Amino acid sequence: MTHSLTPNLDRVAGPADLRNMDDATLTKVAHEVRSEVISAVAQTGGHLGSSLGVVELTVAIHAVFNTPMDKLIWDVGHQCYPHKILTGRRERMKTLRQKDGLSGFTKRSESEYDPFGAAHSSTSISAALGFAVGRDMGRPTGDAIAVIGDGSISAGMAYEAMNNAGHEGRRLFVILNDNEMSIAPPVGAMSSYLSRMYANEPLAKVKSLAEGFEAALPAPMRESAKRARQLVTGNLQGSGTLFEELGFEYIGPINGHDMGQLLPVLRAARARATGPVLIHCCTVKGKGYAPAENSADKYHGVSKFDVESGTQAKSKPNAPSYTKVFGDALTEEAARDPNIVGVTAAMPGGTGIDILADRFPSRVFDVGIAEQHAVTFSAAMAASGLKPFCAIYSTFLQRGYDQIVHDVALQNLPVRFAIDRAGLVGADGATHAGSFDVGYLAALPNMTVMAAADEAELKHMVATAVAHDSGPIAFRYPRGSGNGVEMPERGEVLEIGKGRVLQEGSDVAFLSFGAHLAEVEAATRLLEKDGLSVTIADARFAKPLDVDLILKLARTHKALITIEQGSRGGFGAMVLHELADRGALDRGLKIRTMTLPDRFIDQASPDEMYHDAGMTRFDLYKMAVSLTSKDGKVVPLTKGA
Amino acid sequence: MTHSLTPNLDRVAGPADLRNMDDATLTKVAHEVRSEVISAVAQTGGHLGSSLGVVELTVAIHAVFNTPMDKLIWDVGHQCYPHKILTGRRERMKTLRQKDGLSGFTKRSESEYDPFGAAHSSTSISAALGFAVGRDMGRPTGDAIAVIGDGSISAGMAYEAMNNAGHEGRRLFVILNDNEMSIAPPVGAMSSYLSRMYANEPLAKVKSLAEGFEAALPAPMRESAKRARQLVTGNLQGSGTLFEELGFEYIGPINGHDMGQLLPVLRAARARATGPVLIHCCTVKGKGYAPAENSADKYHGVSKFDVESGTQAKSKPNAPSYTKVFGDALTEEAARDPNIVGVTAAMPGGTGIDILADRFPSRVFDVGIAEQHAVTFSAAMAASGLKPFCAIYSTFLQRGYDQIVHDVALQNLPVRFAIDRAGLVGADGATHAGSFDVGYLAALPNMTVMAAADEAELKHMVATAVAHDSGPIAFRYPRGSGNGVEMPERGEVLEIGKGRVLQEGSDVAFLSFGAHLAEVEAATRLLEKDGLSVTIADARFAKPLDVDLILKLARTHKALITIEQGSRGGFGAMVLHELADRGALDRGLKIRTMTLPDRFIDQASPDEMYHDAGMTRFDLYKMAVSLTSKDGKVVPLTKGA
Repeated sequence: MTHSLTPNLDRVAGPADLRNMDDATLTKVAHEVRSEVISAVAQTGGHLGSSLGVVELTVAIHAVFNTPMDKLIWDVGHQCYPHKILTGRRERMKTLRQKDGLSGFTKRSESEYDPFGAAHSSTSISAALGFAVGRDMGRPTGDAIAVIGDGSISAGMAYEAMNNAGHEGRRLFVILNDNEMSIAPPVGAMSSYLSRMYANEPLAKVKSLAEGFEAALPAPMRESAKRARQLVTGNLQGSGTLFEELGFEYIGPINGHDMGQLLPVLRAARARATGPVLIHCCTVKGKGYAPAENSADKYHGVSKFDVESGTQAKSKPNAPSYTKVFGDALTEEAARDPNIVGVTAAMPGGTGIDILADRFPSRVFDVGIAEQHAVTFSAAMAASGLKPFCAIYSTFLQRGYDQIVHDVALQNLPVRFAIDRAGLVGADGATHAGSFDVGYLAALPNMTVMAAADEAELKHMVATAVAHDSGPIAFRYPRGSGNGVEMPERGEVLEIGKGRVLQEGSDVAFLSFGAHLAEVEAATRLLEKDGLSVTIADARFAKPLDVDLILKLARTHKALITIEQGSRGGFGAMVLHELADRGALDRGLKIRTMTLPDRFIDQASPDEMYHDAGMTRFDLYKMAVSLTSKDGKVVPLTKGA
Repeated sequence: MTHSLTPNLDRVAGPADLRNMDDATLTKVAHEVRSEVISAVAQTGGHLGSSLGVVELTVAIHAVFNTPMDKLIWDVGHQCYPHKILTGRRERMKTLRQKDGLSGFTKRSESEYDPFGAAHSSTSISAALGFAVGRDMGRPTGDAIAVIGDGSISAGMAYEAMNNAGHEGRRLFVILNDNEMSIAPPVGAMSSYLSRMYANEPLAKVKSLAEGFEAALPAPMRESAKRARQLVTGNLQGSGTLFEELGFEYIGPINGHDMGQLLPVLRAARARATGPVLIHCCTVKGKGYAPAENSADKYHGVSKFDVESGTQAKSKPNAPSYTKVFGDALTEEAARDPNIVGVTAAMPGGTGIDILADRFPSRVFDVGIAEQHAVTFSAAMAASGLKPFCAIYSTFLQRGYDQIVHDVALQNLPVRFAIDRAGLVGADGATHAGSFDVGYLAALPNMTVMAAADEAELKHMVATAVAHDSGPIAFRYPRGSGNGVEMPERGEVLEIGKGRVLQEGSDVAFLSFGAHLAEVEAATRLLEKDGLSVTIADARFAKPLDVDLILKLARTHKALITIEQGSRGGFGAMVLHELADRGALDRGLKIRTMTLPDRFIDQASPDEMYHDAGMTRFDLYKMAVSLTSKDGKVVPLTKGA
């Protein structure tokens, strides 16, 4: 009989079991959960650092609150691995972020313990307040607890929610998971004191106790206490916390790795709170795993790794990533044009804006998780004569949509939108898919919308965006590596609204917009084996459309197929509108639009996701064959063909 | 020779002239501007209350700052009438909000004194920061001044901007125009003291002076001073202001109608500021015009009125407004179903949610100017089993787009979106047009999208939304009065995804989505006079589409025309996608899509705007004739036909 390394965790089938354990056992469970997270993520890759930071917090919340009747909402959700382990998903952790496996985030369809899914930041307080109202209106739901990081709470949406929650005054728990701060001993000492005090005193007295205690501290400890407050208030001068000003009771800071603090504070808060309470909890990202704690990014997102050494598996890309191509191209252009500036919303590395920042630090603006502000700020910089490149992932740009309409498009200001992660993105799944940008941008007057077919095209589009100073322009490109095409020495300024023809044929015409071009070329090779003559055109622009090209393709082929890595209502829709309104459909046109289907696609590899979406070379092949064969029969084709 | 009533204002051709006047003359100019605003708006209607509140502030800013080199940005922009009068647009004030006239908001294309247009709230600080960066990077622009109201500054976007501005630390002026507060004498007295102190002391000392002064005040005055702070900090306990915590210097509150305070404070701030400064300025909405000051809404938005009595011209609508029909219908449903709740983002009256609030106050949530939060808060209420109706104008719903995608559609939560002001809206112009919602919603999986053809249909759609508990549903309807159709006793639950045929013909089929149906019917009458046989169908749903109906219309008519009050990429695009992908275009279909054109439409009456857009009954008539006539000739038709 083998001896289990996780004897206490093995007794936890669900959170209810935690509630029958004493505090010392809960501490042991937390240790075992940490080991489990490390060994699970070592096999799958994932968001390790954030999850390690909330191990104790997760155990404590489930031990104290009555989940799933009480609604626990993890902001962003990438720190939820300990939560998944404790809520019946332990065995499935090895499927994390894989096709048909567990999501890397919380997800309603996955568990009753995930009452409100997440992946984009700063939604948790709004959600918790919604559940609190449901409870107060008699719905069968208990307390609502939001756990939100110090980055997420800085977004406007979190502020709106706190503002409203403070006004509503309903019982509600917000746990601020503050992992930017290392817990130096003085702060830890004060935290211990506070949490002991807190457990013995009614809520209302905690604040004054805290203040009294702070004043009574010796000077160096007072300094540390002030630093703790600074994290919350944004500066050293503030003497009340922002949370108190918004109507919350403020408790903390407490040490989020000390069950001796967490459990009594949460129990007392649960027993006594009447209104909204903010519990400020300091944690260490990557806690308890030395390679993570010692790394600069705390192993925020890792690939598979060796537990002993922490060495991550490295994939060997054949070509630079689109992100790097963008960052490099922008930096080269910036070296020539001093008016170019870069804007990112808390994603300098993810967007490649860090490459510009390394070379020209004063010309890069990281505005935090604040897409609304990022867009309007860029618009005004454009109005002043600068050339702002506002680099935001497709899915997050949705947060700045009104600002794109109202401040950029309506005023026709030359903001350049660099839209990374367009299309399906892989392991991050449906929440991170960039599905809608072509439609929501192409609908806007004054907007120019491009998509890069490969990394060389991306470089041309950066140059085109620099040169296009008469209005806003956007260019989208996918996640991941380029195709390995030869890169031009310098990006070429493309003619606005002109596509290109890669090869001319006579049977079927593919009109591709963006990075699905490689798949189109592969489908073409298959069709050519069957003797079909195929035209491949790269539209480059969804707006303005290359109407001459489109009309010519329609006129000279048996069938026309548009392809895009996006939803209906985007490029294909614009082509159809144009053809319809010019009468080009009147006498018949075999036209089909290949778009993402009308459902959300769960995580898998991008290739698998496009397979799921019915957008592979084989799908294109079949579509083309069915349109061109005289008898209308579809030639069956197996994947090996 | 007649004696001018505005001898001082007559000497002001532009702001430069103000800079040569002494303070006493500036005070006189302000008085004259006030009279001018009242008499101008009496003729045109418009946003009177807000403009009267900032008369002195406007004069003072232009007298102290070097506009247009310095960039003055009015948040929302509806308070800009004094600004327009002083910046060369005095003579055109009688054209305000009319076709080819002055915009009711600031607008870049209208004047170099409008460096950044507005109409949606809370954009001004982001914009000012953008100009400040432009200046610091050598662009030819001076100081940046944002003027923002106490409502607007509560939105998440303003918080994001302040957060970033405080971090950047650049010289920047934010003037908080706080008009919720009546200036009681004690506060006014302290303000006077403060502003005198301020003018004589360097910036850094002002805060401590203010604090010392406050403490030294007799108790009742201290109470008032606290109230002033409460407005800024959100509660009475906060001892630092939110602005200071975000890195701003805080000055105030000062009396915004006292040039003796405004001028020295602005001069001192301009002379000495090195970083971001917030000047808290208390004003009275409707100031100086008794009927406005005495009215509950301070004449926020008025129609033409009699200056002597303040009596507003009343238009006599033939039918109740869509807004009232929605509010009444929702309230009736809510009386039957206790799970129905209403959510508004600071627009209870504009959306009709006030009708529900009158009857069931505890079931209405006004979350403030916070559309992002409003949507996610609604999503969680839906997850708890409530039936939230989230009532937001089409144009403002753009602010919550990511939340609709990520929190509502992806989780398939039954939030009901009541989308008022869909289509062109009249005097508020392009910034308020509801042009894009059909496209940006119909692209989303799980979403159901309806549009009401008339007010009876709206009542049915409210009932349908109550009954539809399996996913999110949205229904759009226009600004203004209904058509006067007979109202059903009770709304009927419509079958999801089914349209209706109003009349059957054989030549041309109109497939209308939403409130343009009346125009379609008018066009039909014209066509019938010419002997054409016309089918009129009301699609009711843009998603899911009534595919059977669409295919039948396509099969059985010479021509099919889709009509919607929205941009390309919406209803017509979805119809085209469906027809294309089902092969219904293969053998030819004369199909045309009538949508808003690809440009922004300036303010006029809604009818004039649709004329400008090429969407009148005559445009429909011509389109149908050209599609059905054998020789392809368009029958000319004059408007009188």
